[in-house]
Parts: sequence; structure tokens; C-alpha cells
Amino acid sequence: MSHQQSFEVRTRGRGSTEITAEVARIARASGIATGIAQVFVQHTSCSVMITENADPAVRRDLETLAARWAPDADPAYRHDTEGDDDMAAHARSLLAGTSVSVPVGGGALLLGTWQGIYLWEHRTGAQTRRVVVTVLG
Amino acid sequence: MSHQQSFEVRTRGRGSTEITAEVARIARASGIATGIAQVFVQHTSCSVMITENADPAVRRDLETLAARWAPDADPAYRHDTEGDDDMAAHARSLLAGTSVSVPVGGGALLLGTWQGIYLWEHRTGAQTRRVVVTVLG
Amino acid sequence: MSHQQSFEVRTRGRGSTEITAEVARIARASGIATGIAQVFVQHTSCSVMITENADPAVRRDLETLAARWAPDADPAYRHDTEGDDDMAAHARSLLAGTSVSVPVGGGALLLGTWQGIYLWEHRTGAQTRRVVVTVLG
Repeated sequence: MSHQQSFEVRTRGRGSTEITAEVARIARASGIATGIAQVFVQHTSCSVMITENADPAVRRDLETLAARWAPDADPAYRHDTEGDDDMAAHARSLLAGTSVSVPVGGGALLLGTWQGIYLWEHRTGAQTRRVVVTVLG
Repeated sequence: MSHQQSFEVRTRGRGSTEITAEVARIARASGIATGIAQVFVQHTSCSVMITENADPAVRRDLETLAARWAPDADPAYRHDTEGDDDMAAHARSLLAGTSVSVPVGGGALLLGTWQGIYLWEHRTGAQTRRVVVTVLG
Repeated sequence: MSHQQSFEVRTRGRGSTEITAEVARIARASGIATGIAQVFVQHTSCSVMITENADPAVRRDLETLAARWAPDADPAYRHDTEGDDDMAAHARSLLAGTSVSVPVGGGALLLGTWQGIYLWEHRTGAQTRRVVVTVLG
């Protein structure tokens, strides 16, 4: 049994947008009691991540670290077609990943209390991002 | 077809605990011949990972690298509510991920010879961690 | 409903090999209209990744960054049984992951325009890598 729905997220440059509620709603709408919900972005310069949902400072600190893991405008980069943030965004997308999967039980997402699902934008400019949610059971 | 079971792991602070046998047992118990087993932790300061299962030095070296990727008590962090290891643990959880998925074939996990599944604790203190295994086929 | 097929990739040392076409073919062969295709490597020193498929410089820049994230022959490593690239390869495998999952819709992979699936070899020598593709729906 499978159920699939897509939605768009308008981002305003670097930073994260919580999408837990949208994913939870699609999981419930699937009618699937036990299974997995996969959340996937069709892009290579943003991520889907699960992280702490209580203190926004956690996500600011992740930005700080990401700037060390994959700095903008690094002189070693050869790919910079779309600007200083171009290659940094691809590298952060690799590290944080382009999808997460969450178990579904009793017809609901089995997230822990402090887990939220976020679209993490790695480009500095605003973007429209397409998210595909697939629920299997 | 789907099968889901949870179990707890008591950790003793930073380090990894092999959970391959528990996951393999749940995969077999599912009765699913061909599919996927997903292993998910309901926390944002530990990880599930697949890594080399023969030489424990590999997992010690991963600790060494993780201390560079996300150091404890970094002066740039704004989130430190639960201590020096708090933000470092969230960042490591992001990098190593909160779930792995393993193919199931012939009713068993299709892991390579040298692949083991580990719960990787990122907090310095002992914790009780909840692992949800979902088998789909 | 599930469908599973394996194939081998001969690598020529560090670098990435596109496998999008092989995965797409297996997804179509599955006859599954809506679901997920999971791509898994049975090794701990290479990765499967999704990244930008237009400019090869992106993948060269990822090598450059990987050499910072997990350098060869780091004096801190204790695991070096198979040479200077041994532990670096395990660490890169952890960071980039050993599997990706892609939604399937209308009987085809729902990749974005610029997303390609790559086997990323982290060892410096040539290897034969086994890839397992599982399609669920």
C-alpha cells in the first residue's frame, strides 16, 4: 500500500522551515497504520533534516557549523556558476542529505518528542522547493 | 506488508553499541522475504549508523573525527542548555543521521560482510535510547 | 509489493560513477507505479549519493572537501590496516552514507532535473562494488 503527495516550500534564503505538520497530515491522510513516511526534496542545494525542535538556537548553530564544513566562495572550488554559495550549497546538501524517513505507527508519525522535520535551505537567495512525501505500509 | 518493533538501548556515554543482531532478529520475525528494514532513533543527540564491524579502532577514529566536525563547548554555539556536549551531539546526529535502511532478501538483512549497524551515542552521559525497526515488503 | 535486483560497479579508485540509468531501469522493471526505490552498497568504504548531474566540477569539489572532512593518513587514526586511505574511506562512507532512497511515481524515479545518483568510491585503488536496489510500492 502506498500514498504520495507533493507540496512546495518557499524559502527566504539560508535557514530552516519546519514541515513536520505537513508531513504528519499526509501520513494521516494515507490511511496507513504501520509503515514509513519518506520525505524527499527534488533539489541538490537544500536538505531535509530531522533535528531538535524546541530551541531555534540549535538550527542557528547548525548554520555556523555548516559554514565551516562547506564555506562559501572557497578558493579551492571549481564550480561557482551560480555564485559564492553555489558549491557550498551542494556540499551541505550532501552532508545533511536530501531525504529523511520516519516510521509510522498507529497511523501517525513516530517522531520523538524533540524531533522536528525541516527543509534546510542552503542557497542565500529565496527559492521554491518541491517536497515529495511517500507513505508505504 | 509491514512489521514494526521497538527496543531500548542503554548507553554509557559517547561510543557505539552494535545492534545488528536485534535488527536481524526483527527482520526474520517479520516473515517478509524481500523488502527493507528501517532502523530509526527517536532522539536528536544520537545516531544510527552502518560502519565497519571488524576493528573497534574504526569507531574510535570516528569519535576523533566527530570531535573536529562538531567540537564540544565551541565558543560559537548559542545552544548549551544541557552542557558542553549538547550542541555537539545535535550536530553529530545531523551528520551521521537518525536512521539507516537495509535491504532484506531471502528473509534476512542483506548487509555486506564488514557492515554492522550501531547506535552511536553522542552525549557524554549515559542515556536510554528508543530504536524503532520497521520492516516493509 | 517489492522488487529487488543487484548489480556490480567496477570503480577505478576515488571518484564517482553515475548509476542513475541502472536504478531507473530497475524501477521501471519493477512494475511498481507509486513507491520508493532504495539504493544500497554492501561496503563501508564507498557511498551512494545524490548530487548535481550537470557540471562534473561539483563532484571534483566534493572530493576536495572530503579530503578536509576525513584526510588520508591522519596521524590521529589508529585504524590503517589497508593503507593511508583506509580510515578516510570509512569516515567518508559515514558522512555521505551507504544508501539513498528515491520516490517512484507514475512508474518512474521522481528525481529533480539536476539530481543524479552516483556510486562514490572512497578507496584510492580500483574496487568491485555491489549495489542492491529494492523497489517497494
